[in-house]
Amino acid sequence: MIRVPAEPSGRLPEAWRHCVGTGRIDLALRRDYQDSLALVQRDIGFRYIRGHGLLSDGMGVYRPYEWEGTRRVRHSFTYVDQVLDAYQELGIRPFLELGFMPSELASGEQTVFWWRGNVTPPRSHREWAELVKATLTHLVDRHGLDEVRTWPIEVWNEPNLTDFWAGADLKAYLKLYEVTAHAVKEVDAALQVGGPAISPGADEWLDRFAEFAEERDVPVDFVSKHAYTSGPAQPVPFGVHQTLAPAEDLLDQFATPRARLKGTRLAEVPVHITEFNSSYCPDNPVHDTAFHAAYLAPVLARGGDLVDSFSYWTFSDMFEEAGVPTSLFHGGFGLLTHRQIRKPAYHLYAFMARMGPDLLARGEDHLVTRHPDGRVTVLAWAPVDPSGETPGPSRHRLRLNLPIKSRQAFVRRSGVDEEYGNARTAWQAMGSPRSPDAHQLAVLHEAAEPVRRHQRLPVEGGAVDLDLTLQRHEITLVEVTPVEDESPPWADERRLLGGQPR
Amino acid sequence: MIRVPAEPSGRLPEAWRHCVGTGRIDLALRRDYQDSLALVQRDIGFRYIRGHGLLSDGMGVYRPYEWEGTRRVRHSFTYVDQVLDAYQELGIRPFLELGFMPSELASGEQTVFWWRGNVTPPRSHREWAELVKATLTHLVDRHGLDEVRTWPIEVWNEPNLTDFWAGADLKAYLKLYEVTAHAVKEVDAALQVGGPAISPGADEWLDRFAEFAEERDVPVDFVSKHAYTSGPAQPVPFGVHQTLAPAEDLLDQFATPRARLKGTRLAEVPVHITEFNSSYCPDNPVHDTAFHAAYLAPVLARGGDLVDSFSYWTFSDMFEEAGVPTSLFHGGFGLLTHRQIRKPAYHLYAFMARMGPDLLARGEDHLVTRHPDGRVTVLAWAPVDPSGETPGPSRHRLRLNLPIKSRQAFVRRSGVDEEYGNARTAWQAMGSPRSPDAHQLAVLHEAAEPVRRHQRLPVEGGAVDLDLTLQRHEITLVEVTPVEDESPPWADERRLLGGQPR
Amino acid sequence: MIRVPAEPSGRLPEAWRHCVGTGRIDLALRRDYQDSLALVQRDIGFRYIRGHGLLSDGMGVYRPYEWEGTRRVRHSFTYVDQVLDAYQELGIRPFLELGFMPSELASGEQTVFWWRGNVTPPRSHREWAELVKATLTHLVDRHGLDEVRTWPIEVWNEPNLTDFWAGADLKAYLKLYEVTAHAVKEVDAALQVGGPAISPGADEWLDRFAEFAEERDVPVDFVSKHAYTSGPAQPVPFGVHQTLAPAEDLLDQFATPRARLKGTRLAEVPVHITEFNSSYCPDNPVHDTAFHAAYLAPVLARGGDLVDSFSYWTFSDMFEEAGVPTSLFHGGFGLLTHRQIRKPAYHLYAFMARMGPDLLARGEDHLVTRHPDGRVTVLAWAPVDPSGETPGPSRHRLRLNLPIKSRQAFVRRSGVDEEYGNARTAWQAMGSPRSPDAHQLAVLHEAAEPVRRHQRLPVEGGAVDLDLTLQRHEITLVEVTPVEDESPPWADERRLLGGQPR
Amino acid sequence: MIRVPAEPSGRLPEAWRHCVGTGRIDLALRRDYQDSLALVQRDIGFRYIRGHGLLSDGMGVYRPYEWEGTRRVRHSFTYVDQVLDAYQELGIRPFLELGFMPSELASGEQTVFWWRGNVTPPRSHREWAELVKATLTHLVDRHGLDEVRTWPIEVWNEPNLTDFWAGADLKAYLKLYEVTAHAVKEVDAALQVGGPAISPGADEWLDRFAEFAEERDVPVDFVSKHAYTSGPAQPVPFGVHQTLAPAEDLLDQFATPRARLKGTRLAEVPVHITEFNSSYCPDNPVHDTAFHAAYLAPVLARGGDLVDSFSYWTFSDMFEEAGVPTSLFHGGFGLLTHRQIRKPAYHLYAFMARMGPDLLARGEDHLVTRHPDGRVTVLAWAPVDPSGETPGPSRHRLRLNLPIKSRQAFVRRSGVDEEYGNARTAWQAMGSPRSPDAHQLAVLHEAAEPVRRHQRLPVEGGAVDLDLTLQRHEITLVEVTPVEDESPPWADERRLLGGQPR
Repeated sequence: MIRVPAEPSGRLPEAWRHCVGTGRIDLALRRDYQDSLALVQRDIGFRYIRGHGLLSDGMGVYRPYEWEGTRRVRHSFTYVDQVLDAYQELGIRPFLELGFMPSELASGEQTVFWWRGNVTPPRSHREWAELVKATLTHLVDRHGLDEVRTWPIEVWNEPNLTDFWAGADLKAYLKLYEVTAHAVKEVDAALQVGGPAISPGADEWLDRFAEFAEERDVPVDFVSKHAYTSGPAQPVPFGVHQTLAPAEDLLDQFATPRARLKGTRLAEVPVHITEFNSSYCPDNPVHDTAFHAAYLAPVLARGGDLVDSFSYWTFSDMFEEAGVPTSLFHGGFGLLTHRQIRKPAYHLYAFMARMGPDLLARGEDHLVTRHPDGRVTVLAWAPVDPSGETPGPSRHRLRLNLPIKSRQAFVRRSGVDEEYGNARTAWQAMGSPRSPDAHQLAVLHEAAEPVRRHQRLPVEGGAVDLDLTLQRHEITLVEVTPVEDESPPWADERRLLGGQPR
Repeated sequence: MIRVPAEPSGRLPEAWRHCVGTGRIDLALRRDYQDSLALVQRDIGFRYIRGHGLLSDGMGVYRPYEWEGTRRVRHSFTYVDQVLDAYQELGIRPFLELGFMPSELASGEQTVFWWRGNVTPPRSHREWAELVKATLTHLVDRHGLDEVRTWPIEVWNEPNLTDFWAGADLKAYLKLYEVTAHAVKEVDAALQVGGPAISPGADEWLDRFAEFAEERDVPVDFVSKHAYTSGPAQPVPFGVHQTLAPAEDLLDQFATPRARLKGTRLAEVPVHITEFNSSYCPDNPVHDTAFHAAYLAPVLARGGDLVDSFSYWTFSDMFEEAGVPTSLFHGGFGLLTHRQIRKPAYHLYAFMARMGPDLLARGEDHLVTRHPDGRVTVLAWAPVDPSGETPGPSRHRLRLNLPIKSRQAFVRRSGVDEEYGNARTAWQAMGSPRSPDAHQLAVLHEAAEPVRRHQRLPVEGGAVDLDLTLQRHEITLVEVTPVEDESPPWADERRLLGGQPR
Repeated sequence: MIRVPAEPSGRLPEAWRHCVGTGRIDLALRRDYQDSLALVQRDIGFRYIRGHGLLSDGMGVYRPYEWEGTRRVRHSFTYVDQVLDAYQELGIRPFLELGFMPSELASGEQTVFWWRGNVTPPRSHREWAELVKATLTHLVDRHGLDEVRTWPIEVWNEPNLTDFWAGADLKAYLKLYEVTAHAVKEVDAALQVGGPAISPGADEWLDRFAEFAEERDVPVDFVSKHAYTSGPAQPVPFGVHQTLAPAEDLLDQFATPRARLKGTRLAEVPVHITEFNSSYCPDNPVHDTAFHAAYLAPVLARGGDLVDSFSYWTFSDMFEEAGVPTSLFHGGFGLLTHRQIRKPAYHLYAFMARMGPDLLARGEDHLVTRHPDGRVTVLAWAPVDPSGETPGPSRHRLRLNLPIKSRQAFVRRSGVDEEYGNARTAWQAMGSPRSPDAHQLAVLHEAAEPVRRHQRLPVEGGAVDLDLTLQRHEITLVEVTPVEDESPPWADERRLLGGQPR
Repeated sequence: MIRVPAEPSGRLPEAWRHCVGTGRIDLALRRDYQDSLALVQRDIGFRYIRGHGLLSDGMGVYRPYEWEGTRRVRHSFTYVDQVLDAYQELGIRPFLELGFMPSELASGEQTVFWWRGNVTPPRSHREWAELVKATLTHLVDRHGLDEVRTWPIEVWNEPNLTDFWAGADLKAYLKLYEVTAHAVKEVDAALQVGGPAISPGADEWLDRFAEFAEERDVPVDFVSKHAYTSGPAQPVPFGVHQTLAPAEDLLDQFATPRARLKGTRLAEVPVHITEFNSSYCPDNPVHDTAFHAAYLAPVLARGGDLVDSFSYWTFSDMFEEAGVPTSLFHGGFGLLTHRQIRKPAYHLYAFMARMGPDLLARGEDHLVTRHPDGRVTVLAWAPVDPSGETPGPSRHRLRLNLPIKSRQAFVRRSGVDEEYGNARTAWQAMGSPRSPDAHQLAVLHEAAEPVRRHQRLPVEGGAVDLDLTLQRHEITLVEVTPVEDESPPWADERRLLGGQPR
């Protein structure tokens, strides 16, 4: 029995919902994408969204042409506006990532992904700077300076990997960063620019980045890196499998920037984990499972102690880095599949969104908070075995003694596990239909609904005893509400069918 | 183990959803009403809707005035049009009930209900006939003759009760019927008129009605009566309790018109039960319970053998015969409460709407049908004790052997009982809040969601064994679908976390 | 030519949209009402809404009952919550009017209106005070104290008229006011209570009210009265005609409270004109005309100098004081008819809603404002002859020299007059169909659309010359926007069909 | 004065709205696209929609992979289903075009358009046939055979042009056609297959196609070609200008297939013009003009006499063949711009959609029809000068004597010309903003609204005289409705302001 204190130890940080990842930014033109994001915003409410490709060819921004014998450039924002207007309508702000290279401005032909993002440095740093300035100036004109000052601007993506930046050339990146940062500040000195958006395992780039910023007096308003826990890819057709490190490894990765930058000029700037997940592959089925939600739960509960944001990569399976998915469930990153089937990780986030602002307790299998109106909310999760050597315990018991100001308490519980709230399990039972028809989609939507239970519990000594049994890989949200009983004195269930009153 | 035959014995009649009842017709102007009806139509899809008050003052149809010294009448359809346009938009047709009396046309001042419907004969049968003709002519002009010919037109409501027709005067009713039927046919001979809309226990009125129709050659296109099973009201503040007869009693009441009219000119006309329910009181909590759904299930399964329609009274708690309800749950007739909380009886109807057209089997605790696409659907219900002497068995087991054309079957089950899919239970646990706030309403909407389970079952000998355990007062829908397995050969759950393939 | 100054003389007061009137409050349960209010809020955006009947029987609040031999009272908020939740959803707050009397609490049987609001004093002032306190306590519980403190609470309606308050008994009103005001303050001292909500022509009640408040130290947080300009009713069937005083008469009526209360304790409290219109009859066709918009335009332009609000009575024709309307256009108060046909007065309000916050100029036929982004907006109106002796000039010319910061200006004009933006004219041409069908409604919606014109004008000396000709009874909105020309050098209309470039 | 006969000469063919074109099919995943199509379907209601790219890489259908050392192919319909489900929801059916080549199945690397559709023959005709069969089988499984039998299946696009089919190789096309047609018929013999989808000026391909079909007994269920009237492109940056042939030239092009195929086996098969427009360039500003609507009006009025369908290329500016548009108005093919601004050609189609089924008269500047309810509708257009040598007459007068069965007629007119209903004119006056902000978009939506006028006209001798003056490049819709006058005897406008009655 864990006794939860009646007074909060502080606020639950909002870092877990500060930002979320998205497939390349032009996918935001899609209806399925927008439908998914609308659902996410209704149930979760992320503040920012970050994705690749803002300056890639698909967005049509950089448009050279000839007129009267001279080469000129038109900067065009037809799709940028459609995307950002949609974000505004959906109540989410962009966490801008500047990249990749427009092919007509690129110095080489190397591309990344099925959709061919060019990853080479600009042919002309002057033209790149013009492009950056034109883009930000347009955004400021359209959205207002006060607004755009709240949008972080990150320079490039994972330049430490050869796939994402030709030759993983640190010097070339620092040059690009410097040119970009100055271009940003030329538009407005209060715009927020940062980097280096590195992948896991390259923290030495942080040191170089800090040194460079100091030596050259380059503006850095925030520092960013990514975090993943998966091992090497074991490919199967249209998919991969991978081993996973324990979830704590994510928290360790979150912690390194602040540790590493201590004593540098960047010691105090915000740290954003601009991508995190278990597997970095968009076709690893682990993303679709109840295991995945239970695995990530402690990360969401604790990550905010370490960084200013950690951004789940990504909110939707509408994502085409490895091509168009060939099956509804395909191991995509999404909290949602195409067609808005909610995965267990979606529920994890939706449950987090229902936690209160005041932190009462936090343990290895639970998080307890309180709302201003007195409701106490518990997020609990079953322990998992990421090694895969055991299936995880089939039952996990957790007893909490929760403070509550009333004589009776109403308890509402929502659960997601291997059986309930688990559309993937239902989908497998249906025969794993790659292109489900309307009826099958309806079944899956229904299957994704968590199971709900309700009960009245007595309050004793200002607290209620909550005895929870979790199923394998279950995450569960419990809301305990003070009861004010309005049932009239004549209420008597024994009389329902005309029987004698008590 | 019940072996369900592979070949249908016939079609499942649609009488159960031919018609539904509504509070007085001007309530259809309300938004909560329309929101509720939209939900009902999405999930159930009734064909017709019937309610009182079309000609009562609230609809503003009969409007005498003076001009140049003469009394004249304007017939006005401002609200009639708003209501019928709403019905059209919602995909439901009116089952017209002509009544009650406009107060300026009435011969007396007796009224019924909190909303004061005048229940006296017309001061002038000529003016009444003009009113009927003007109304139907307007409807034909607006909706087209083909359409209006499909709308049954019922004359008055429960004239055999003194509350509803001054003095329960049979002769006066027959006179009203005659005048009305001729007025209807004057507009168009193919319009459908009928009566006498009697309450239970007055079947001798059917005999008199048939004799009168024969003697006076009065058109009768259908016969109507009502059916209820409750005993005398045991009042409490804002509510009543009543004993109930067994549900079979409803089927017996359905059966009497055809039996009684055999050999008369009305032997072959359609029979409509234009109202039915357990209790006839709009403030009996039994309407809100899981018991009520399990109690009515066999009636829905069998009623269509006996009559052309039986119309649940009513689809929504938006109903004011006893005044404005003072509490969210208050024992209203509705399938839905105000604010669209689904009651167990709502789920019963929604489950029926998912049954297939082909009838495979029917028993005392189950109904089995098949869809053209091969899906087999089972509606099962736990037996209830309407005497209230026992609480009903806490568990009920049912084993069915179901024909299915595939090697594997996908089984999807939705259940509603005392705990799950039961917002009333949750509401009581919350302290019976009379005016729930937005958060409480959200909890109740969630609590009203049935519990869902999914599994894969093997098919042997062209059939699947379904072993169901029902909880107390449970109704459950099971859908069994042939599985075509698309999972690829490389699918292997053991590899999810990077483990070795099998 | 009127030269409009480049610098604002101040802010345009928002009194014109502080509040709007509504038919009795339970009509807010209707869908047509809510659809209309949604449109109004989208295009106009009133802050508050005020109507009769909050405590009348139709809302079902006051519910006496017996239990264990004792009479008790249940206060019930089923419909109050539905109405106020709808207002909240629609972004408008209630301007609460406490009245009329629940019939079971009334001391007499006198009623007002077709819907029979009881206008007699309470049988028990103690029970009335309990009712007031229970209602406000419920509202505070549900909506929060901060919110409810922003809702004005007005005691009764037009107690100086015998129709609205038995005997127009001043003493009885002051007693009611006193009891009510103290009950309100008992709930929370910062709730805002006021009165006496008098009809025009009874300003001596203001003197008595102020004296009484002073003598008895009764809280008065605001003072309210009504203003209308129509003469005696000349009835026709389903309608009336009336003479009208000039519109300035409304401004004179607005001005009297502050003048009269100078030197009293109420000298500084806000003054709300809680109802105003030309005719006080809900069936005077003048409300539906272009004349009416042009007549009221100067009142909207100037009224805010005199009072804190002046509330148009009412936003919609969904209004039943004289019974259910018998025709789409029937002279109702509404800015909108049933089915949301916009009347000219609707456009007047919608035009006002597009004026900027900075007041540049105001004249007898125009109002000029500027938005923060530099747009200059002009509301202009043709002079009318309210005596009806002349039809009003067929053309009216207005020349304005408007300051604008650019080299070119884009001019956008919307107009409503006897022909354009005038559904009533189209409706008459269609034959005045009382119950228009769907096609006719579509024509009327289209006919209600203002006519729009656009042009580019040169700017000279920092200003643009706007030469407007208004048609009879026209109101027109002109928006002048600085142009930044982005047309490329190769743009050349002569080449559209392959012709030679210039 | 043209006297229009009272009796129809026949039905107005629906060929004008049988089909509409779209940018490449995966654009249908976009929200702007679906919003536009929803509007088009509401106002126009096309039956079918045709676009390129169903089998191109962007749709992700053809997906080779290796498993256990063998190359295999997965056919995947993730996006096909999303697109066709959207079409179904929007009430439009696909006119399937089979192409272009999946790059992994292609025999070469030649591509067309910015989005790089591969235009080379398949590397393996067997695999192509498998792809075709798998696709159609999937569609039949999902949508039902009855439904898919109504979907025309066209083989490739403009194979007579080297841009669209490597080498414009006739023999290779006939081979592809043959393989495809047999593959289609293998799925179901009643599926409808056709070609050769040629561009203008290649009618000899029709002869070869017919001979080949006859010689090899290849199924051909319909014949298709395209029609355009523009001359050579005169490029400017981000646009082109072109000369245009007179609109009659389109009708001539429509007529050739039937003429040419007379006497062949294809003489009786349906002829579909699967693309038509004035200019074939997606960046010719003529598409955005009032001229364009007036130019096409006679084609819509007469085209149905010559072919079974003629499909406007395309419904929306969401179209990327020449890259992402850099400006809101850019000369796109669309009836709608991005963001759903209606162009004059949109109104032409919307006006056509309001014409009646019975054809009364047709002239060089007008089309007259009647609805079953007696409404007479006139589409009139001003003559244009496509040579561009004159601007077209500034006024055009048309007098029609229209039969109408009533004593009075209600006349409703909607007009679009150089000033009214013309967002492009307003956009130019605004300074041609390439990326309009929300306010500017609202202005443009408003500016796109046609001007409306209404009047009552007397009927004499069963007919009404309609005297129309059209402005330059005006298209106008006039609806003449019989009036049944319901205005009461006491209606008298002179009493509006309390004046004396007549």
